[in-house]
Amino acid sequence: MGNVKVIEIHEDIFASNDRTAEIIRQKMTAQGTLFLNVMSSPGSGKTTTLIKLINMLKADYRIGEMDVDIESSLDAQKVADATGVESIQIHNGGLCHIDADMTSRALMEYDTAGFDILFLENIGNLVCPAEFDTGAHKNVMILSVPEGHDKPLKYPLMFKVSDLILLNKMDAVDYFDFDPELAEKYIHELNPDAVIIPISAKTGIGMEEVAGWIRKELEKVRNGR
Amino acid sequence: MGNVKVIEIHEDIFASNDRTAEIIRQKMTAQGTLFLNVMSSPGSGKTTTLIKLINMLKADYRIGEMDVDIESSLDAQKVADATGVESIQIHNGGLCHIDADMTSRALMEYDTAGFDILFLENIGNLVCPAEFDTGAHKNVMILSVPEGHDKPLKYPLMFKVSDLILLNKMDAVDYFDFDPELAEKYIHELNPDAVIIPISAKTGIGMEEVAGWIRKELEKVRNGR
Repeated sequence: MGNVKVIEIHEDIFASNDRTAEIIRQKMTAQGTLFLNVMSSPGSGKTTTLIKLINMLKADYRIGEMDVDIESSLDAQKVADATGVESIQIHNGGLCHIDADMTSRALMEYDTAGFDILFLENIGNLVCPAEFDTGAHKNVMILSVPEGHDKPLKYPLMFKVSDLILLNKMDAVDYFDFDPELAEKYIHELNPDAVIIPISAKTGIGMEEVAGWIRKELEKVRNGR
Repeated sequence: MGNVKVIEIHEDIFASNDRTAEIIRQKMTAQGTLFLNVMSSPGSGKTTTLIKLINMLKADYRIGEMDVDIESSLDAQKVADATGVESIQIHNGGLCHIDADMTSRALMEYDTAGFDILFLENIGNLVCPAEFDTGAHKNVMILSVPEGHDKPLKYPLMFKVSDLILLNKMDAVDYFDFDPELAEKYIHELNPDAVIIPISAKTGIGMEEVAGWIRKELEKVRNGR
């Protein structure tokens, strides 16, 4: 492992990514589209939560969804089937994240100008997606009850970069050793501004509050034009 | 994104990693230590499963445990407190995996010569850890019931490189939409040789079978000296 200038290259990648992300964000704001990046561990309920939210919001808003997976197209198909919205699948070829360059390439092939809300379902991973700004207005993160309340301590960056944190599968909270108050305490120590909503995408607990948060964020984007 | 020879560099990294991994494996075989790399999503139950296994096996074997996390030391402490075995924590500084070079650096500071079994608890992630041979004799992977039976379709490499796959949290199977037979079918389509054991590290379901698999693998390593 010779004397390679890894750090400088790394910084440059992040700086370049941040510039692209900012261009995406400005484009989305200009067209009045709220762009939300949704992140979590595998199996935390990203797809189920998005299907529920899209079905709650689709009467009032035009909604698009982009789904990132390594090589399968299961989730985009599931969202399209369950909601009727136009959904696209991005195959990222084995990487553990999606960055702003990949997002911008997807946006070249996916016409989002007519959407009020655009969801990006990121790769299931608590490490890499947190490092790359995708150009979304806000980051939404899902922590599910079976994963445990200690995850903010173990994957702090993910919890620091997220604006809205959903504690999902609350219908199963009696079954697991998960303390929602302790989870909230750990999250707020890392990120005092994070909005935390306990939900169950399966039973509907808390989902109206999440929909309300999205409506307000869309208003902010529209007012920011 | 100019005309950079990314693929060659990438291949070289993997080739170099594979050479280091082979050296680690030979050293472990020579000293009669079974070295197991344990991988899963965050919150699938790696630490709980390891604690249970170590407590089942520690009367008969000398056991070591290495725990990889980004910056916390929770898991190594938890294992040491619950089992009494000597456990070390590796902080990998934000990477989403541990590779053979990192393992070999840890092994320089951690005397494993007296161990019959050495566990490596990898970073909670279904993407990156699958790409790097750590030098372990066998890869053990945990898929937990709340994550869903479709995970082999979405993270295929992880299921291809794993020798033993544990379906954990089976005590909660009635509560989630998880079909163990479908999970096994998807896994065996990717990896016909994978040994699959449904378990609950919490209640003990299947754990004797896992301990039996470890005893047999240790015999193979001893016979391979």
